Amino acid sequence: MSIETARAARLSTRKGQHSQYTSGMAPGFVQGNVVIMPQALAGDFELFCHRNPSACPILSVAKAGDPMLPDLGEDINISTDLPRYCVWEKGRCIATPQDIRDIWRDDLVTFVLGCSFSFEEALVRQGVRLRHLEDGSMPAAYRTNIPTVPAGRFGGPLVVSMRPLSPADAIRAIQITTRYPRVHGAPIHIGSPDMIGIADIEKPDYGASPAMRPHEIPVFWACGVTPQSAIDHAKPGFCITHAPGCMLITDLENASLALF
Amino acid sequence: MSIETARAARLSTRKGQHSQYTSGMAPGFVQGNVVIMPQALAGDFELFCHRNPSACPILSVAKAGDPMLPDLGEDINISTDLPRYCVWEKGRCIATPQDIRDIWRDDLVTFVLGCSFSFEEALVRQGVRLRHLEDGSMPAAYRTNIPTVPAGRFGGPLVVSMRPLSPADAIRAIQITTRYPRVHGAPIHIGSPDMIGIADIEKPDYGASPAMRPHEIPVFWACGVTPQSAIDHAKPGFCITHAPGCMLITDLENASLALF
Repeated sequence: MSIETARAARLSTRKGQHSQYTSGMAPGFVQGNVVIMPQALAGDFELFCHRNPSACPILSVAKAGDPMLPDLGEDINISTDLPRYCVWEKGRCIATPQDIRDIWRDDLVTFVLGCSFSFEEALVRQGVRLRHLEDGSMPAAYRTNIPTVPAGRFGGPLVVSMRPLSPADAIRAIQITTRYPRVHGAPIHIGSPDMIGIADIEKPDYGASPAMRPHEIPVFWACGVTPQSAIDHAKPGFCITHAPGCMLITDLENASLALF
Repeated sequence: MSIETARAARLSTRKGQHSQYTSGMAPGFVQGNVVIMPQALAGDFELFCHRNPSACPILSVAKAGDPMLPDLGEDINISTDLPRYCVWEKGRCIATPQDIRDIWRDDLVTFVLGCSFSFEEALVRQGVRLRHLEDGSMPAAYRTNIPTVPAGRFGGPLVVSMRPLSPADAIRAIQITTRYPRVHGAPIHIGSPDMIGIADIEKPDYGASPAMRPHEIPVFWACGVTPQSAIDHAKPGFCITHAPGCMLITDLENASLALF
């Protein structure tokens, strides 16, 4: 696993040669959720992240107007290095460009947030079976009845991702993800979906039906869709995020995020 | 919390002033399960412990014939310091004396094994609610269909203790007990009792009915009854254990057992 893998993945993205999901690209390297917010709202958004660290764990915040993120990788330019972006106006995604150089502004503040890809890699490496990876799909995700702690206009429900696990794997998954608080950390719930406002586990709000099997335990983690839901709640006049599944590939190794 | 508390508890026991359960005595100090085995069988028993470390975590092994356990406390004399003993012959408890000086032998090897009291203290201190403690009872325990790894004549099923927990507390309990491998460590199972051969959760093989409540998750730990069950399986001509609930109080602090 060489850092050149991560740089090569970013470079092909930057050249427009890759405009798809980043899942499986540059294995071993941290991928991040991206939110780019005008400075007038950036303070509230940062506070929202600090108040909801499981859902919105900050990996890096750039200086206003600066598209570079040197602490995540020497050459990262956030205006070119995502495969695809969502440009939001008042809570609606109005465009999904491959490049945002032409709409970049001096007041834009970039947030990079931890993503479940990192802990999933740790789980798989330690023998936990994740069915959605075996099936090549995304994990099911749900809006819960757990409110986030609001900040300014940002708020709304906590969104969780769910992975069905055997009891033994559920125990291992709790142990392993506890070591990774910067990428959502430990589960926030296990078992009964109705306790957190999920009426039908087979009907997720995002992703495919999980097709739970007998004896499997649903294990729920705070999800990086939560900040997108908070943006939908706040409806800022303008902001930019990564398009679903099109994450920022950094030079950080997943293993470097482990607490112990 | 002073080490004098542990010593005073042992001294009152040694003087015959205390012949009951040690639960709640000398809070903060490690209590241990005790097995005293003739040297001819001690090697196999030690191997059984090493092969089943979750159920039989060794805190200390004494020299043959020596009743002192200096690594667990300066003055500990295992022939006087338990409130009550069980003397076993061929798998039957034939006597429950308060003192075993008169039957002590030069070939007896003492094993002290970690006990769930230590992790329960850690759980309670960190806010996990344990109903059996609130009710003043023992946790429910069950023989499972999981075989121990045998050694010589020692074998038989894994016995587990079970604590009903809210989902949030179950997650915390897995995190906290993972830090304490010397006192059974992380749970070995959560959820469906039938997966480990328990037909009716309300009918434990040991302890009181747990009276599970809606949304509670049964959380199962390897239990210190397992070595007693292995003795029942091996039926040695002679051995001695602590009587149920009458543990050895040591000078070790529970907190000192945490891995991190």
